[in-house]
Amino acid sequence: MTVLVLTSDEDVTADLVVARLNDTGIPVVRLDPADLPGGITLSGEYAHGAFRGYLSAGDRVVSMAGLRSVWLRRPGVPGARAAVPSGWLTEEASQALYGMLRSTGARWMNHPDAAARARHKPWQLRLAQHSGLQVPATLITTFPHAARDFARRFPDLVVKPVSGAHPQEPPRVVPTSRVAPDVDFTAVALGPTLLQHRVDKRADIRLTAVGDRILAARKAVAPGAHPDDIDVRFAPSEEPWRPVDVPPLVAEAVHRYLREAELAYGAFDFAEDPDGAWWFLECNQSGQFGFVEMDTGQPIARAVADWLAGP
Amino acid sequence: MTVLVLTSDEDVTADLVVARLNDTGIPVVRLDPADLPGGITLSGEYAHGAFRGYLSAGDRVVSMAGLRSVWLRRPGVPGARAAVPSGWLTEEASQALYGMLRSTGARWMNHPDAAARARHKPWQLRLAQHSGLQVPATLITTFPHAARDFARRFPDLVVKPVSGAHPQEPPRVVPTSRVAPDVDFTAVALGPTLLQHRVDKRADIRLTAVGDRILAARKAVAPGAHPDDIDVRFAPSEEPWRPVDVPPLVAEAVHRYLREAELAYGAFDFAEDPDGAWWFLECNQSGQFGFVEMDTGQPIARAVADWLAGP
Repeated sequence: MTVLVLTSDEDVTADLVVARLNDTGIPVVRLDPADLPGGITLSGEYAHGAFRGYLSAGDRVVSMAGLRSVWLRRPGVPGARAAVPSGWLTEEASQALYGMLRSTGARWMNHPDAAARARHKPWQLRLAQHSGLQVPATLITTFPHAARDFARRFPDLVVKPVSGAHPQEPPRVVPTSRVAPDVDFTAVALGPTLLQHRVDKRADIRLTAVGDRILAARKAVAPGAHPDDIDVRFAPSEEPWRPVDVPPLVAEAVHRYLREAELAYGAFDFAEDPDGAWWFLECNQSGQFGFVEMDTGQPIARAVADWLAGP
Repeated sequence: MTVLVLTSDEDVTADLVVARLNDTGIPVVRLDPADLPGGITLSGEYAHGAFRGYLSAGDRVVSMAGLRSVWLRRPGVPGARAAVPSGWLTEEASQALYGMLRSTGARWMNHPDAAARARHKPWQLRLAQHSGLQVPATLITTFPHAARDFARRFPDLVVKPVSGAHPQEPPRVVPTSRVAPDVDFTAVALGPTLLQHRVDKRADIRLTAVGDRILAARKAVAPGAHPDDIDVRFAPSEEPWRPVDVPPLVAEAVHRYLREAELAYGAFDFAEDPDGAWWFLECNQSGQFGFVEMDTGQPIARAVADWLAGP
């Protein structure tokens, strides 16, 4: 039974996982959907009530009946490397590839439906609340009056994108920023705006969940850091990520979240407040983990490989 | 409890359903997501473990807690009618709107995840087989040799898109066409191609499923029709659609299909062969029903309204 890894050619994180799988002798086929059609051949036949399908690339063939798991890591856009790319070819190639893979009984990390759903921030916030995680007061609005009312009740606010990365190539990450106290919020009418009560944080927490396994890391806010340096991705900090134990109630809530979200992998971001409480910021179903593994030595790539190799 | 209808302004099919809901006194709010931001205001607050949200347009307000059901009919693209449209605004507005709606307990016709999944033709074919429907032998391939082998075994073939409509504005429907007997299939390497054993059809069947309710209509192939006129959407025919009973085994299989697909609405296309057997061609989760209702008088709009008004 084969593990199928769908990712782009240059993906050192995937390299680590594939190397680990190779070590254990589990058959692995790694493909970039951008090579369909072209480097990848696909065929699926539905006849007499049965289905037989395969994918091949170079000398590797994977039968749909022999598929153990699919790692939807950072796949390229189907059809992108065709001689004459087009929206139509991308649609045809996507439906053919993912439609066939969806017809199998393979386990997914993560299933494309779960992945698509998990990207919705409002849904994340509600699910985090339901799961028992602490969520900072948050407003998503196009109504200036609602924004002003919220800012009266929660005077110290940050603003961040509703959706995540800016959809340009390459994606541009829009940092979380502090809201100045004198903002009049008229502009929220121009586009949905996410305002969130700022957590007076002592540390950033990255919790990586792989199946039932959770590994957390903590990056302390540097002494004397400027309170406007909100976003750990942009803050100038020499503090390393260090392994940290997960409070049992948080662990339980994270497991609930993942079950409900039907995610096999999730990268949770929390802010730790002065009392040591962890406040849920978001869960990125495709979050990177290489930087955490490098700092902490936590065996995340191995956990991913073990999950993919599972029964 | 309110019914929310998401569709474009010009949608006579939605008009029929909304009129029916108005008759029964069920509150209805009809919006086009293209008007967010602008004509539509959205606000959702997550604080102290609770969630309160609403949408409003003109003088109509719908609270997320008071949402009975959502009809995802033919919604415009969020942000499309903004003063300065952009991919970024569309992404932000989509996530804000659908993320908030996904946080509610409302019933969907159809849920966006189920809708997205249901568009995959290979997945449809496999599910139809599993559900007990008869599926014509089908091959989806980029491998010329596989196409030639299939054509030897099933000499009378049609070709159709894997994905459905061509993704241009307005969408262009690509007709199903007969494959000439002397085709060499080299070109399938350029893009996944769907080949299907041609059903020698006596009639087209359109089965419309609304919740547990199924209504079928039959359009006989006109006497003397040319065998190359495969596609009912393009064939020159004066034959009307007439109501027809659904064979019990087909009805059972259709119910299984819908349960598994988690669809509240589906428009199934079948081809009836000379023995009267129905061959599954596809299930369109957003298929039109106005033309069937007009010919047959079957109360489909009413069935949709009843489902949306349900508990």
